[in-house]
Amino acid sequence: MNFELPPELLELQAKTRSFIAEQVIPLENDERQNSHGPSEALRRELVERARVAGLLTPHVSRDMGGLGLSHVAKAVVFEEAGYSWLGPTALNIHAPDEGNMHLMEAVASAAQKERWLRPQAAGQTRSCFAMTEPSPGSGSDPSMLATTAVRDGEDYVINGTKWFITGAEDAHYAIVMAKMEDGAATMFLTDMDRDGIVLARNMDAMDRCFTGGHGVLRFTDVRVPATDILGEPGKGFRYAQVRLAPARLTHCMRWLGQARRAHDLAVDYARRREAFGKPLAEHEGVGFMLADNDMDLQTSRLHIWHTAWLLDQGQKCNFESSRAKVVCSEAQWRVVDRCVQILGGQGVTAETPVMRIFTDMRAFRIYDGPSEVHRWSMARKIVRAAQAS
Amino acid sequence: MNFELPPELLELQAKTRSFIAEQVIPLENDERQNSHGPSEALRRELVERARVAGLLTPHVSRDMGGLGLSHVAKAVVFEEAGYSWLGPTALNIHAPDEGNMHLMEAVASAAQKERWLRPQAAGQTRSCFAMTEPSPGSGSDPSMLATTAVRDGEDYVINGTKWFITGAEDAHYAIVMAKMEDGAATMFLTDMDRDGIVLARNMDAMDRCFTGGHGVLRFTDVRVPATDILGEPGKGFRYAQVRLAPARLTHCMRWLGQARRAHDLAVDYARRREAFGKPLAEHEGVGFMLADNDMDLQTSRLHIWHTAWLLDQGQKCNFESSRAKVVCSEAQWRVVDRCVQILGGQGVTAETPVMRIFTDMRAFRIYDGPSEVHRWSMARKIVRAAQAS
Amino acid sequence: MNFELPPELLELQAKTRSFIAEQVIPLENDERQNSHGPSEALRRELVERARVAGLLTPHVSRDMGGLGLSHVAKAVVFEEAGYSWLGPTALNIHAPDEGNMHLMEAVASAAQKERWLRPQAAGQTRSCFAMTEPSPGSGSDPSMLATTAVRDGEDYVINGTKWFITGAEDAHYAIVMAKMEDGAATMFLTDMDRDGIVLARNMDAMDRCFTGGHGVLRFTDVRVPATDILGEPGKGFRYAQVRLAPARLTHCMRWLGQARRAHDLAVDYARRREAFGKPLAEHEGVGFMLADNDMDLQTSRLHIWHTAWLLDQGQKCNFESSRAKVVCSEAQWRVVDRCVQILGGQGVTAETPVMRIFTDMRAFRIYDGPSEVHRWSMARKIVRAAQAS
Amino acid sequence: MNFELPPELLELQAKTRSFIAEQVIPLENDERQNSHGPSEALRRELVERARVAGLLTPHVSRDMGGLGLSHVAKAVVFEEAGYSWLGPTALNIHAPDEGNMHLMEAVASAAQKERWLRPQAAGQTRSCFAMTEPSPGSGSDPSMLATTAVRDGEDYVINGTKWFITGAEDAHYAIVMAKMEDGAATMFLTDMDRDGIVLARNMDAMDRCFTGGHGVLRFTDVRVPATDILGEPGKGFRYAQVRLAPARLTHCMRWLGQARRAHDLAVDYARRREAFGKPLAEHEGVGFMLADNDMDLQTSRLHIWHTAWLLDQGQKCNFESSRAKVVCSEAQWRVVDRCVQILGGQGVTAETPVMRIFTDMRAFRIYDGPSEVHRWSMARKIVRAAQAS
Repeated sequence: MNFELPPELLELQAKTRSFIAEQVIPLENDERQNSHGPSEALRRELVERARVAGLLTPHVSRDMGGLGLSHVAKAVVFEEAGYSWLGPTALNIHAPDEGNMHLMEAVASAAQKERWLRPQAAGQTRSCFAMTEPSPGSGSDPSMLATTAVRDGEDYVINGTKWFITGAEDAHYAIVMAKMEDGAATMFLTDMDRDGIVLARNMDAMDRCFTGGHGVLRFTDVRVPATDILGEPGKGFRYAQVRLAPARLTHCMRWLGQARRAHDLAVDYARRREAFGKPLAEHEGVGFMLADNDMDLQTSRLHIWHTAWLLDQGQKCNFESSRAKVVCSEAQWRVVDRCVQILGGQGVTAETPVMRIFTDMRAFRIYDGPSEVHRWSMARKIVRAAQAS
Repeated sequence: MNFELPPELLELQAKTRSFIAEQVIPLENDERQNSHGPSEALRRELVERARVAGLLTPHVSRDMGGLGLSHVAKAVVFEEAGYSWLGPTALNIHAPDEGNMHLMEAVASAAQKERWLRPQAAGQTRSCFAMTEPSPGSGSDPSMLATTAVRDGEDYVINGTKWFITGAEDAHYAIVMAKMEDGAATMFLTDMDRDGIVLARNMDAMDRCFTGGHGVLRFTDVRVPATDILGEPGKGFRYAQVRLAPARLTHCMRWLGQARRAHDLAVDYARRREAFGKPLAEHEGVGFMLADNDMDLQTSRLHIWHTAWLLDQGQKCNFESSRAKVVCSEAQWRVVDRCVQILGGQGVTAETPVMRIFTDMRAFRIYDGPSEVHRWSMARKIVRAAQAS
Repeated sequence: MNFELPPELLELQAKTRSFIAEQVIPLENDERQNSHGPSEALRRELVERARVAGLLTPHVSRDMGGLGLSHVAKAVVFEEAGYSWLGPTALNIHAPDEGNMHLMEAVASAAQKERWLRPQAAGQTRSCFAMTEPSPGSGSDPSMLATTAVRDGEDYVINGTKWFITGAEDAHYAIVMAKMEDGAATMFLTDMDRDGIVLARNMDAMDRCFTGGHGVLRFTDVRVPATDILGEPGKGFRYAQVRLAPARLTHCMRWLGQARRAHDLAVDYARRREAFGKPLAEHEGVGFMLADNDMDLQTSRLHIWHTAWLLDQGQKCNFESSRAKVVCSEAQWRVVDRCVQILGGQGVTAETPVMRIFTDMRAFRIYDGPSEVHRWSMARKIVRAAQAS
Repeated sequence: MNFELPPELLELQAKTRSFIAEQVIPLENDERQNSHGPSEALRRELVERARVAGLLTPHVSRDMGGLGLSHVAKAVVFEEAGYSWLGPTALNIHAPDEGNMHLMEAVASAAQKERWLRPQAAGQTRSCFAMTEPSPGSGSDPSMLATTAVRDGEDYVINGTKWFITGAEDAHYAIVMAKMEDGAATMFLTDMDRDGIVLARNMDAMDRCFTGGHGVLRFTDVRVPATDILGEPGKGFRYAQVRLAPARLTHCMRWLGQARRAHDLAVDYARRREAFGKPLAEHEGVGFMLADNDMDLQTSRLHIWHTAWLLDQGQKCNFESSRAKVVCSEAQWRVVDRCVQILGGQGVTAETPVMRIFTDMRAFRIYDGPSEVHRWSMARKIVRAAQAS
């Protein structure tokens, strides 16, 4: 057992940290952001800066233009990138693109990769992942999938409504989950400018850190060639797992950066601001919160590292990534909530970035499976393992 | 001991409930709201509706144009009003006006009441309470007061900066806390259009339920006649207590209404939305959250009722109002956080009012004394009481 | 609404408080206790002291020799009695006798009352309530009842095993729940010295505050005359509810006394013991715990009072008594756990009574329905109420 | 980074696991235990079994007769040993002996090691660590040390009272902390049969897993040669730190085993016991608790491993061992409390080992520094580190 990071990773960590501090944080109040998130124009500037810094798309293979990082290396770099809410966009590792690229690399055909993945890895395009549906369709329970794909000659014709589709606005292509006539769930690739795809609206969300926000997409008789099926027909849910286990973990990594940022701001405030005759930090009530923050941050980091290492060993980690997702989303939320409390009025106003982190982060306990679904899934596996032993 | 509400109060409760449902909730998405809160135009319409319904300014004495409710009666009516975030504005019982009117009635001279209180009770004007200051001034620790009032002939000349001044924008008058030359804290009354009072900016806050938002006010050589001192010089902190104990409790009442609203929405969603083969509400994980909500709501209500009754008996309730404030702000927050979780994606978007309640409510654990300051104040009193016995 | 206690109740409260302080606490280390609880000899002395003080069996009607207290009055008196773990035994209001007497008074025939209730109300006898069974019988889920009662002439013949039967050792009579041939659950009354009733063993429990401990009872061909059925055949579960709703609440009352005792000891310790240059109580970390204790104690008291008042109005309070049971058992447990923490080493040794209160109280979150069963039952009622509205 | 355990460690882990299952757990109900813990006779049998199995005293160097395990290796082996409450005694790694041997090896002279450490490492003797004192002496705050050591010729004469001295009864030697005339704290080694050392009593503690229990020791004019000073005079507190950082961590390791045991028992119960028509484990309320247990266990393990690895790198880890102690003591306590709840009545009686684990473990949040002291110490270091950066 060994918690040492290799020198080249330490160097990459330091480089990312500087890049975020010097190139990204100064843009946090840039006006090219709207109520949903950074605009495409701001994204392009950020991506260009990362490209120049040699930090773009670090998770994709060198073949496809990335840095080919292992999961453990991603854990280290993504935490640093997450320190600014613009960092993941800059490094091209924001959701859903990061997970989509991972899935494409694992499953797409060579032609599909050239067409969709390579320009995306270069930061030129964005994508969305169209799975979630309004009631009574597929929400936490994917088996309720209602969007259909009907074979018609060499094509499939897709109909359905998707919502909470992160990054839909201005995305270049989509991965769409639909049910075939035999009930099998299949993933389709489609450019977003195809006839019949309409962004009905962008949802008014609590977070505003995702480029493109969260959209409602309508698919009306969208005709997709059978050759644009991603991987094999009927393997939609299996691929969703391929995508989800690591995607859950990269959420944990990025948000850890945000939580650490909030904590640093709270520590800084607590040691400067005085009340009742001494700095806030010398009040036990505040000091205990700082200690709890440190525990929660380190707990998150250790779960991330451990699960990333298992992924690097080739394990599927469905259980461990569920566990890490629940642990991190709840621990990091406690951190940010405590920071708001320590900062007082400044925590609930834009006087500091902490308010923004707070509202950006709340959905983390919900997206990619709410804590309750993961706990339930873990419970079944715990019992099954006990029965087997 | 008796938990029965008298028939006339039950009637007022029912009337308020109907009023909110029929006259106020339909205006919740009215466009006359900005990123800080409802506009003055919307406020005037709401107030007019409440006036017609006979529900305006229920907490002020009949002499001054209100309904002269007891604290217990306020507990019942304010909870109903709080069911909509526009309700308190409609009934003219929103912060800070509600507490300011209470203070004016308790301390102001007859002339001051005629000049400032009577039109305010009629819903024609608004006020703000200018106490909190940026660092290193008066925050949680009021003894750090930095704004000064220097005697000059028959006047006082006030200089200082205040922030987090709720409702400052478009307020008609302010109650300003300033330190006199002898160090004594004194409250001054002043119209807001006086020379030297500038709204530097409106702060970008997480909540947007307060008409006028939260402003930064600059007082530069503001000249206030000595006759506009509120009550007696040097009694500023004492009056702040007169204002705060009941004001804390009315926060608890109003927010209880908001928390109950979120809970009702969550119950409704949980019994309609299906996942994994049955309605959400039939999943224990969700059902337990609903049960916890009910416990937290009832706990809040009981603390409010008990403290209100003590206030009606003439007790000062500094301890009990601190206790109620901590209990309610934390219990109601847990309720709203659970509702967000139950609603999933719809809890973190404007698809339902719950997201709005969530972001509106977070400051409740901070404003009027963060939980930590109240816990500390309670601890000292607990120990002192034990030493005395 | 009115939180005032009538003068005669205040007097009874003061009298009970003095009685516990002067007559009961001095016996807490009396040697006539074993690993299960106070012995019958100690119980008789305690009862005699309460009889002399005019405090014996306050919950039973005056007709039957008690003081005929209302539920609200019980709330006040039982909390005082609970201040010592011997107090409930002294006043003859300990579990399960208190609940059994309540059930007997509500359901038993006049002859049954004379035979079993009157001597019990006089403190001369004890009883047990034989419902819970070892797996796969009736535990949290009463429908799994396995003990049988088969008609044979004028008698019923009972066979089965019961466990966790509080007070079984040396009890004079039992109320036994058994399933008749038609599947209906029925309660039977029987003296404990009847042939076929054997105390297999006394269980080794964490608590030791119950006279007679918790026993395993075997019923082998126990012959009970049909006239000794309690109430009507087949109404066993209904009567269990009659017994349980108030019995749950009296648990809350008694344990509130224990929690308050632990808190008083912790306050006392915290203001005397110094660490790091000042009394423990002046450390925020400790002060916050004292404040939290006060909140939890008062929350418990308010739920108890409110539910007791509803019971006094003739309501069944199944929902409210479940709620109060969960709120109180969890809040009071937090109090006692914090007290252990404040007392440090003295909290985990018999240097103070707090360790004893801690181990005595843990089962409160389990007995008479674990928190999880109550939460589930509450959830169903919340949803049903919403559907009806 | 690498979470892989080397093959020889995996083998040692498996061997320890089998040894505990086959040689130790069958003795758990052996009668040679009293209300304080296992008797010396039982300890000798356990030690002999471990010696035969080649598992005795694994943490001490091979020179001194141990297995010379690293901290990481200890993490793995001690968790296995902790699976039974008799395991640490068997392997000779129970507190306080494990920490005392560590301290002796680090600080004692060669002669002292031969005299006291070698027989102890062979399992022939036991020791105690006499630091904590009754009020107003040294408790959480070691600076309040009241025991004195006065030079008299070649000797020191020690006077004072110590309590909570684990293992005092039948210990062969003690490490005694005393204050010299110049105020410096110094550690002395003394056989326990020296004149003037009296075990005043054994304290009645909630736990009963420590051989020898927790004693009150009186030192009256105890004459100790200056050559029996441990290390250098005046370095008592420094050595206490040398002992404490790893000793805290070994507590975490052993208790992790106990918590895992409780969890395994709860899983087993939950999948066998039925209620409301299905196994307990299929109730979400129970399943969620099992998932939370798994998270808390893994969180504990990761903190232990990380801190152990840092210790192996030669770091002092005062901060990290404080953190691990708070995280583990609180997480493992939550696990055991949940297990009690899942097991219901069987969790609060000796029907299963869980009750015993519950009462044994509560002191873990208190001994070796209560959570509050560690949080405060962490807070100061967090702020200091921020100031330095």
